Amino acid sequence: MRVEIINTGTELLLGQVTNTHLGFLAQSLFGLGLRVERQVTVPDGAAIAEALEDAMSRADLILVTGGLGPTSDDITREATAEAFGKKLIFHQEILDGIAAKFAARKFAMNDLQKAQAMVPEGGVVLDNKFGTAPGLIVQNDKTIAVLLPGPPNELRPMWDKEALPWLKKKFADRLPPMHEVGLRILGMGETRVQILVEDEVKALGAVEVGYCARPGEVDLRLIGPDKDLVEKTAALARTKLSDVIYTEGNETMEQVVVRLARAAGKTIAMAESCTGGLVASRITNVSHSSEAFRYGWVTYANEAKITELGVATTLLEKHGAVSAEVAQAMAEGALRGSGADVAVAVTGIAGPTGGTPEKPVGLVYFAIATRAGKTSTLEKNLSPVRETFKYMASQIALDLVRRALI
Amino acid sequence: MRVEIINTGTELLLGQVTNTHLGFLAQSLFGLGLRVERQVTVPDGAAIAEALEDAMSRADLILVTGGLGPTSDDITREATAEAFGKKLIFHQEILDGIAAKFAARKFAMNDLQKAQAMVPEGGVVLDNKFGTAPGLIVQNDKTIAVLLPGPPNELRPMWDKEALPWLKKKFADRLPPMHEVGLRILGMGETRVQILVEDEVKALGAVEVGYCARPGEVDLRLIGPDKDLVEKTAALARTKLSDVIYTEGNETMEQVVVRLARAAGKTIAMAESCTGGLVASRITNVSHSSEAFRYGWVTYANEAKITELGVATTLLEKHGAVSAEVAQAMAEGALRGSGADVAVAVTGIAGPTGGTPEKPVGLVYFAIATRAGKTSTLEKNLSPVRETFKYMASQIALDLVRRALI
Repeated sequence: MRVEIINTGTELLLGQVTNTHLGFLAQSLFGLGLRVERQVTVPDGAAIAEALEDAMSRADLILVTGGLGPTSDDITREATAEAFGKKLIFHQEILDGIAAKFAARKFAMNDLQKAQAMVPEGGVVLDNKFGTAPGLIVQNDKTIAVLLPGPPNELRPMWDKEALPWLKKKFADRLPPMHEVGLRILGMGETRVQILVEDEVKALGAVEVGYCARPGEVDLRLIGPDKDLVEKTAALARTKLSDVIYTEGNETMEQVVVRLARAAGKTIAMAESCTGGLVASRITNVSHSSEAFRYGWVTYANEAKITELGVATTLLEKHGAVSAEVAQAMAEGALRGSGADVAVAVTGIAGPTGGTPEKPVGLVYFAIATRAGKTSTLEKNLSPVRETFKYMASQIALDLVRRALI
Repeated sequence: MRVEIINTGTELLLGQVTNTHLGFLAQSLFGLGLRVERQVTVPDGAAIAEALEDAMSRADLILVTGGLGPTSDDITREATAEAFGKKLIFHQEILDGIAAKFAARKFAMNDLQKAQAMVPEGGVVLDNKFGTAPGLIVQNDKTIAVLLPGPPNELRPMWDKEALPWLKKKFADRLPPMHEVGLRILGMGETRVQILVEDEVKALGAVEVGYCARPGEVDLRLIGPDKDLVEKTAALARTKLSDVIYTEGNETMEQVVVRLARAAGKTIAMAESCTGGLVASRITNVSHSSEAFRYGWVTYANEAKITELGVATTLLEKHGAVSAEVAQAMAEGALRGSGADVAVAVTGIAGPTGGTPEKPVGLVYFAIATRAGKTSTLEKNLSPVRETFKYMASQIALDLVRRALI
């Protein structure tokens, strides 16, 4: 089965927005044993129709993103209806649903919204829980087109909850069942992971091995039609990588931490300098994190470290704010001030300025304090790029909390 | 002049790597008055030749990324030579250069490297300072193809130092200068923006109007070859949207806030409950934010609001943590505790649980306290999706700080 993706959006071709849909959809399709053979980005407008016709000459399944909104440059719906030779039919119940969303947010609805209630004849409507434009599935004898909204926060849940289950059901007899194990690794580089596992994994038999390196982690995916073989391979990889695997599947580091803390009935606190609140923000992205997290400090200035966390002025003068000693004092201050079971502290030099030969940009100290034991510290040299630095530091801080909880 | 981009690489279509070339090249080309009309991603191998022939049927300038390496799946060089009807000629001086790079890194060179010294007849060689595969420019009467290496750290300097200067010189007399104004809007929906401006903007003349809705904001782009007309159009849009435009160009909300605070010599503090540190984290994504931001609190639990910000227990009991009164007390506590000039507080219900009929998920209160004036509060109903809720709330909180600074 040949799959192609059409991403629409002038903003993509102007370089204002990075295309993250391709990665998201490709990874999801891979889990079904499907590969994307071609992806094209076209501007809003007439080029969408051309790209659709071109893709229809080759593909069995076409995913189209964007252009479903209510404004004049949103023509994916019309172009698809035309390419499939279907009339657009007005659906009052869709408009009613949109009206209800506007009412709940106390916004006035306008006539332009009506465009979003038009459905190509015989099309399947995909509910949009997080926006107004519904998704659509349009099909003929040869090709299926799935139209998805452009905003990632609308596209992703719609794909997971609506489009993907529909496709799985539709192709139940054509898609070879695939088995997948995903191992998430922190603290080892991609090539080192490959050197450790690939030869032995390949020797076991036909399992596809995928590596995905992201800032602060490596994902190892093992995929194949033979469940036993995939599991056997995964068992081997788990043994080789036992100390650096922090979870399996799609769970994020912050979800692991909140899950472990809730299960243990423990609370955690953060004292952040260079991560600037990112550790707390990631924790609070997790539902029910309020059971595990109660207090956080973003002590960006030295005075804040002194007044809020009780770090001694002499410590700051002697060792500097970026030091193991200050990290330790911050973590212990956070533990005291919050009454939490585990407190983590981060202090470092995010750059681009502020580095010295002794303490370069990218240097960071972590400390983890627990009610039960001795405070421990960790020194790392991370990326000199500010946002990457912050993310990697937050990842290590969360991993320290995870290790303290297990 | 029509420009298309071909990105080659199976890893892009598997979703293992995000395509950042498109954004980089598109932004650079836009500065020359060139727009990318179409971008396609194809896997390594035969599909490259097909994509090239397809693009050559339309485009004047084709940029191809990837597939220039020494291994068997790197066929961009061969495919381009064939599509342009050129012989590949071996260049000893290129191989000597590659050999010198291997020698400097003390790696052994193998015969496969020889492929990288082949140049389509009459082609321009682009030096690769950070890798072995040179870039190439191949041309005939109608089309120019620029072949660039896949790794971003090789492609970007090669583009800036070699390919772009060559193109500028080549097209000195053909490139129409383009003018763009981008307005970033917070507090008005996409369709409302369109209704307010589009008719009058279109009546003024040939300016392209683009809308891009993201969580918490709308970007309005005005683009055209006539600078005066674009500026006249922008002036009209600025008048219509004066209260909701928070900046122009590519500046983010957090960059605006840090710029304004630094210019005014003022500092800001945050007291966050439901945003969980996201406001502070966004501020600290900006270089030099330490000049503007010194103290932040993530008071997720009621006790934290009491002990860290001095919120009165009676206030929490009477109005609940999610109330204008508690938001106000949080902001005033943060102002007191930090000595900052402006303090913002956010308290709300991020969900998925914790909502009631009176205080549903998505309800959020903001307060902004300043050294100079009276504290003001704001109530909003935002998305019930946790991460979207947090982002939108952080956007509004930052906008309140921005308004307090101007």
